[in-house]
Amino acid sequence: MSTDASIIKKSRGRPKVFDREAALDKAMALFWQHGYEATSMAHLVEATGAKAPTLYAEFTNKEGLFRAVLDHYIARFAEKHEACLFCEDRTLEEALEDYLFTVAKRFTDKDTPSGCFIICTSSVLAAASDDIAATIKARHAMQEETLVRFLELRQQKGELPADSDARALAKYLCCIIQGMSVSSRENASYEDLLSIVKTTLRLWPELKKG
Amino acid sequence: MSTDASIIKKSRGRPKVFDREAALDKAMALFWQHGYEATSMAHLVEATGAKAPTLYAEFTNKEGLFRAVLDHYIARFAEKHEACLFCEDRTLEEALEDYLFTVAKRFTDKDTPSGCFIICTSSVLAAASDDIAATIKARHAMQEETLVRFLELRQQKGELPADSDARALAKYLCCIIQGMSVSSRENASYEDLLSIVKTTLRLWPELKKG
Repeated sequence: MSTDASIIKKSRGRPKVFDREAALDKAMALFWQHGYEATSMAHLVEATGAKAPTLYAEFTNKEGLFRAVLDHYIARFAEKHEACLFCEDRTLEEALEDYLFTVAKRFTDKDTPSGCFIICTSSVLAAASDDIAATIKARHAMQEETLVRFLELRQQKGELPADSDARALAKYLCCIIQGMSVSSRENASYEDLLSIVKTTLRLWPELKKG
Repeated sequence: MSTDASIIKKSRGRPKVFDREAALDKAMALFWQHGYEATSMAHLVEATGAKAPTLYAEFTNKEGLFRAVLDHYIARFAEKHEACLFCEDRTLEEALEDYLFTVAKRFTDKDTPSGCFIICTSSVLAAASDDIAATIKARHAMQEETLVRFLELRQQKGELPADSDARALAKYLCCIIQGMSVSSRENASYEDLLSIVKTTLRLWPELKKG
C-alpha cells in the first residue's frame, strides 16, 4: 500500500499534492455506479480532478486504478463489517445481527452508491476483462470464507450444533446479502433491508439446524 | 409486438430476410453479459450480423433495441417461470418449489449468460440512463407483485395463515432469487442454487408464520 498523498514536483511554484485517498474515493464512486467496463479513464480523470499523467503515474492504467479502488473499498468498509463477526464478547446471534445490520446500513448509505461495490462491479463483466473478473470473484469469495470461519469458530465454542454445515450456512447468508445489495440498488430503504435481516434472524434457530 | 421476420427490400437479388427473433437473442446475450451502458450499437451490429440501418429502422436506437430485448426476455423466460406459480392443481409448496427450481435452472443454463437478465442489467446504470433504469426497475418490481398475487391467492385458499404478511414474504423470496442471480454470475452451479432453494423450502413452514 502506498502513502496517503504523494508529492508531484512541478517546474514552478509550490509542489502540487495529489490526494490519493480523495482520488480513490471519487474513482470508487464511479466504478460502483457504472461498473468496470462502462467507466473510462476519461471519466476517471474528470471525476478525480487529477491530471491524466498523474493517474497513469500512480496506477499505471484503468486496471491498476480499479485494483487500488478495490483495496480501498475493502480497507474502508468490508474489513470493518467483517470485524463485527469476531467480537469475542458477543453471542453468535448478536454478532450476526450486528454484521447484517452494519451491511444493511452500508448498502443504503447516501454518501456512496447503493449496494455492495464488489457485487455491483462483478455483475456485468466481459470475457475481455477476465483478469478483473477473477480479482473481483476472488475477493467476493472471501466473504463466504469469512462467514465459514466465523461459523466454525462458533461451532468450536458450542454455539452451533457440531453437525451443522457451516459452508452451506455461509452460502445461504451470502445469498441473502447479495439479494440485499440488489434490492438496495433498486432503491430499497434501510428499513426494507432491516426487515430482510430480521426475518433471517428469526429463521436462524431453524436455519442453523441444516 | 411485431412479427418474427420483416422483409427488407434490397435493390438487387432476393430480398434479405431480417430475422428479428435471432437478432433479439444475440442482442439479449450482449446486454445480459455487459450491461446496458457498456454495450454500444457497434457491438450490437457486430453481434447480430445485421446492418446498422436495419437495426435503426427496426428499433430506432439502442434504447429501443434494449426495450425490445427486455420484452423478448420476458416472453421467452420470465412469463414461463411465473406460470409455475399459478398452476391450480399444485399446493403452495409444490408451486413455489417448481418456480424456484425453474429459476435456478434458468440462472445456470449454459445457452445464455448466467443469472437473471433483469437483475444483471439493473445493477450498473448511470443517471444518464434514467429512463432505461426506470423501465428495468418497473419490470423487476413486477416479480414482487407476481409473488404477492400468488401468496394472496393461496391465502384465500387457506394455504397460508390469514395474518401472514404476503408482501414481506414476497420481498424475502425476491431477495433469495436476487442472491441466486448474483451467485450464478460468479459461477455457482445448478446444484449450488438447488441447495439455496432447498434451504428456503425447508424454512418455509417457519417463514410463512412471519
